[in-house]
Amino acid sequence: MADDVLDQLAAVLPPGALVVDRDVVDAYRRDRADTVRPGWPLALVRATCTDDVQQVLRLASEHRIPVVPRGAGSGLSGGATATEGCLLLSLDALRDIEIDGPAMLAVVGAGVLNGDLKRAAREHGLWYPPDPSSFEFCSIGGNLATNAGGLCCVKYGVTTDYVLGCDVVLADGTLLRLGGRTIKDVAGYDLKRLFVGSEGTLGVITRATVRLRPAPAPFSTMVATFADVESAGRAVSAIVAAWRPAGLELMDRTTVRAVEAFKPRGLDVDAGATLLAQCDAGAASVDEMAAIEAICQGEGATYVAVTDDPDEGEMFMQARREAFPAFFDRGTTLIEDVGVPIPRIAELVGGVERIAEQHRTTIATVGHAGDGNLHPLITFDPKDADAVVRAEAAFAAVVELALSLGGTLTGEHGVGTVKAPFLAAQLGPEVLEVTRRIKDALDPLGILNPGKMFG
Amino acid sequence: MADDVLDQLAAVLPPGALVVDRDVVDAYRRDRADTVRPGWPLALVRATCTDDVQQVLRLASEHRIPVVPRGAGSGLSGGATATEGCLLLSLDALRDIEIDGPAMLAVVGAGVLNGDLKRAAREHGLWYPPDPSSFEFCSIGGNLATNAGGLCCVKYGVTTDYVLGCDVVLADGTLLRLGGRTIKDVAGYDLKRLFVGSEGTLGVITRATVRLRPAPAPFSTMVATFADVESAGRAVSAIVAAWRPAGLELMDRTTVRAVEAFKPRGLDVDAGATLLAQCDAGAASVDEMAAIEAICQGEGATYVAVTDDPDEGEMFMQARREAFPAFFDRGTTLIEDVGVPIPRIAELVGGVERIAEQHRTTIATVGHAGDGNLHPLITFDPKDADAVVRAEAAFAAVVELALSLGGTLTGEHGVGTVKAPFLAAQLGPEVLEVTRRIKDALDPLGILNPGKMFG
Repeated sequence: MADDVLDQLAAVLPPGALVVDRDVVDAYRRDRADTVRPGWPLALVRATCTDDVQQVLRLASEHRIPVVPRGAGSGLSGGATATEGCLLLSLDALRDIEIDGPAMLAVVGAGVLNGDLKRAAREHGLWYPPDPSSFEFCSIGGNLATNAGGLCCVKYGVTTDYVLGCDVVLADGTLLRLGGRTIKDVAGYDLKRLFVGSEGTLGVITRATVRLRPAPAPFSTMVATFADVESAGRAVSAIVAAWRPAGLELMDRTTVRAVEAFKPRGLDVDAGATLLAQCDAGAASVDEMAAIEAICQGEGATYVAVTDDPDEGEMFMQARREAFPAFFDRGTTLIEDVGVPIPRIAELVGGVERIAEQHRTTIATVGHAGDGNLHPLITFDPKDADAVVRAEAAFAAVVELALSLGGTLTGEHGVGTVKAPFLAAQLGPEVLEVTRRIKDALDPLGILNPGKMFG
Repeated sequence: MADDVLDQLAAVLPPGALVVDRDVVDAYRRDRADTVRPGWPLALVRATCTDDVQQVLRLASEHRIPVVPRGAGSGLSGGATATEGCLLLSLDALRDIEIDGPAMLAVVGAGVLNGDLKRAAREHGLWYPPDPSSFEFCSIGGNLATNAGGLCCVKYGVTTDYVLGCDVVLADGTLLRLGGRTIKDVAGYDLKRLFVGSEGTLGVITRATVRLRPAPAPFSTMVATFADVESAGRAVSAIVAAWRPAGLELMDRTTVRAVEAFKPRGLDVDAGATLLAQCDAGAASVDEMAAIEAICQGEGATYVAVTDDPDEGEMFMQARREAFPAFFDRGTTLIEDVGVPIPRIAELVGGVERIAEQHRTTIATVGHAGDGNLHPLITFDPKDADAVVRAEAAFAAVVELALSLGGTLTGEHGVGTVKAPFLAAQLGPEVLEVTRRIKDALDPLGILNPGKMFG
């Protein structure tokens, strides 16, 4: 049967789109979730257009073959990992970018990198705000599939807030064109926002229409250090209650030490916690930043410095963005993405420290403190079987802690493979049952990214 | 059977919740869509808690009786109009407000008025941005059901952007608790945003958890007049391309004349178009407002004035908010809610003027120009049969025009009854088919608000 399908695919796809060469296929089998073991797909398809995607899904439905869609493979949860015998459907070649300046929007192929969209918008004096740390190497299709967040979300919101429309191919090959070029549109159900964040389990997003905003004023940037995470957490709560920083990031001591070892930038490796804040309010930034500084000092900051030099500020934010790569060099990592209500941040971070001790494993905590969305990173030696067990137990304990604080197991990375075993605990049986009804309504054969999200 | 159901309802509901008195019921049968004729419900239920809603839906499912949910009845599309023989389920008594200041959110019953939520938030130094013109008399439940917009959306987004979670009762009485108190949460499908905007056809929202923001800086307000709508439309495009006003409203001459006749405030009744802009950027507002003024002057504004007095500014915005009431006094109105891509605003308004002439009817145009969302208001004498026919033809022609410009038939009011006949033309058969699959998955007996949205 497999040969039959491959022949049929070869007949309907353009030359080069169907790839069976194991070396090439191998390069597409994983995302950045270290611990997830990929299977071998039947074949890789590098779609060149929406029609290719429709052809693949039609044949996949006919033969009931699982399809695993993927963008740039920068995901951190194993949502795009190949499963055994699947058709691995890469959207990375869909790179069209149309900027419609007067309408303040862009229409982009799913494979367009977030950073390329930002640059194209900038040429029109416009801005695409969502900014995952991976913006230089993650795709818009993947951003939509996971409803990706980033650093500026604290002021500007997440991916779904920018999606005006998208083209989605359903499991049976039907093309849906959702939304359009209007800013506000409530005609019918908000289907586009149902597909956003569905991690390829309801349909394959091939193109997105996203809202652009005027370019922001230059950023000014604060670095503040604290003796402990608790006082930094209190500063975060006080800042977001009164001000609207365009970024508010937290790094604990373990994180700062790792990023300084990775690339030294003069951050204080002895501080218990480091906060980075950015303001982009133009003439009002001066007042805003002064108030944020005063709040940090009031909460006992051991050091506070502000720079209005955008390049210097960007250097600090870049240090923050390199927190994950800094650990990727040091063994295998399990990356958490928990979120809690803002006042519970200190409890979360304190609890994570206790979990690290208890399970004798290293956990660094970094993340979007202003949104209560933090990334405890568990690093371990994959060849040490006992360390693996302890790391996995710590991972589960952190998820459990976040849920016990009224939080979520994923704020922006998605459930994927890594967090699938825990989803039911968060959603509960009623929500899970409705979720399944919707999945069954849209993908009755269950061929779309099976095993992801629901496990 | 009807008596049987009423007996069963009386047995499970608290005293006073079940209402059959025709005078009382009559007061609940309509929303503000003048032209929709309500039916007589079997009974009105004024739910006192989520459990009452579950009881009603369980019995309604058992007996296959349609349920029409309603909030404050301020809707403009006939989405909450009673249908013959339905159970009319009012959420207006669900008025609990909890402000969680440290977590920057509120948990409110569906019946809470938008204005009451705003005031409660303000006591904590916080702000709930979404601001339909009806904010003093519309409910949060209705705001969620329609994904309501408002004046500040141009900067701050619409209702769905503020929903962190909601409690929804399904057709069979099952209670879903969606989302929670975290700002970012991508665990599972974004079901809360599927229920937002579903106009009571997928479930009944009984409670919402909404995000609050820090109170904005005081607003400064500009009034600018133009000889014609085209030049005002060009000014709007130029303003939103470079600046982020917190409001950008357009009134045509017919609208200004009506609001001045309703309550004089000194607006220029001879100007072809009037723009209102608000800035809330604190110290940066001065630059922003100066730039917006300069843009208006560059586009040939005949008059531009700016006030930093919040009360004076509010007076102008209030004039804008009274545009609908100003026409309600003058006969029956058909209220459009079309949206177009921003550069098509002038074409839309010009086209609406031609439609008014062609169909010999009065159409005033007012709305959220900064979002491309405008409300042509068709006023006519309901006792003049020919005028009714012409008004209805004009209504359809405006919808058709908006769709031909790549727009939508509803930007924020919802489809309801009034626009149901046109939905298929906008969505197309594929999207409609998926919509029905989701409707069938969640409301298999079709008891939730039948006849609304889909006709």
